Amino acid sequence: MRIAELSRATDVPIPTIKYYLRERLLFPGEFTAPNQADYNDAHVRRVRLIRVLIEIGRLGIAQVRPIVAAIDDQSLSRHEMLGVVQKALGPDADRAPRADVVAARDDVDRWLERRGWRVSEDAPGRWSLAHTLAALRRLGRDVEADVFDRNASMIEELAGREVTTIPLEASRAEAVERMVVGTVVFETALVALRRLAHEHHSASRFVTK
Amino acid sequence: MRIAELSRATDVPIPTIKYYLRERLLFPGEFTAPNQADYNDAHVRRVRLIRVLIEIGRLGIAQVRPIVAAIDDQSLSRHEMLGVVQKALGPDADRAPRADVVAARDDVDRWLERRGWRVSEDAPGRWSLAHTLAALRRLGRDVEADVFDRNASMIEELAGREVTTIPLEASRAEAVERMVVGTVVFETALVALRRLAHEHHSASRFVTK
Repeated sequence: MRIAELSRATDVPIPTIKYYLRERLLFPGEFTAPNQADYNDAHVRRVRLIRVLIEIGRLGIAQVRPIVAAIDDQSLSRHEMLGVVQKALGPDADRAPRADVVAARDDVDRWLERRGWRVSEDAPGRWSLAHTLAALRRLGRDVEADVFDRNASMIEELAGREVTTIPLEASRAEAVERMVVGTVVFETALVALRRLAHEHHSASRFVTK
Repeated sequence: MRIAELSRATDVPIPTIKYYLRERLLFPGEFTAPNQADYNDAHVRRVRLIRVLIEIGRLGIAQVRPIVAAIDDQSLSRHEMLGVVQKALGPDADRAPRADVVAARDDVDRWLERRGWRVSEDAPGRWSLAHTLAALRRLGRDVEADVFDRNASMIEELAGREVTTIPLEASRAEAVERMVVGTVVFETALVALRRLAHEHHSASRFVTK
């Protein structure tokens, strides 16, 4: 298909597609004439994935780049691809974390070890949890990392189901797309569902009809 | 206490505290001399709350303002305060949503009604779910809003427990602080836990030791 068709199929304007091509987020089409390239379903799929990362994941181009690079890097295993996706999603490691966050990070590391979760030393989630724990303490709560225990059991089960839905025989491109969608799209859904459920329960608890 | 002590107690620089005062995020201290004000525990608490909203919730000053205004507006019920907090957290309503998002919003509204969740028409979560559903469809998944059913049951239970931890006899300030902390801080924790659990399960599924 021509670029105009690719634009119609993805609902993304031609100049934006050309921008993705220049930025190498999108691999070039096959040239059929000096000024004319042919695109296929893989292009459609890639453009849609980029849009989801930007619109739902609210990522910038700088964050999208390592993700698509990881998809195209055939030397990476599926597990390594997930690591790249997670690092791109952030948050970036804090270069000078406050003393209480560093202390909380130690607590989080020991807690993760007790739970037996196999996660890399530089997983961004470790710092996220440390910031969360430090914030609770700053707000005057006398809490240890096991404050996460109850949610962790529920989430461990949920994440297990989610990872299992990625078929082992799926193609690389399909597997990573499912990882990204699972992480970014369903994360947004989870947060929205929780806020809606809070409102629902708050209505039941605090509002007399 | 003097402003220097407020700064030490909260680990927030004096110029930042002065900025919060000018922006009316923080209520003024009691003047003991023309150029000297006295601050108390309520100020410490407020400054810490603002920092958590900014650092953990990644909110801008424009989003923090309606939240603190709602806390100070004694005419709002607790349930109404939660609504204000949720609206400030966003996302803002899309002024010109695409046709597929509008269609998805209808599906989400009907789904919420079937579940019997009492949520206001302008709850931002409705649009978040609509965007999520539209994104899944754009990526080629043939899904209805009941794709959220399984997570919704789990989240409904979780949110119910969370709302119940706010004592009915808690002071207004304490109740809203707990709402904000519960929404913003534990949301960050939930997202981090889910990503860590994905990595853990991915290690088990895709990596042969």
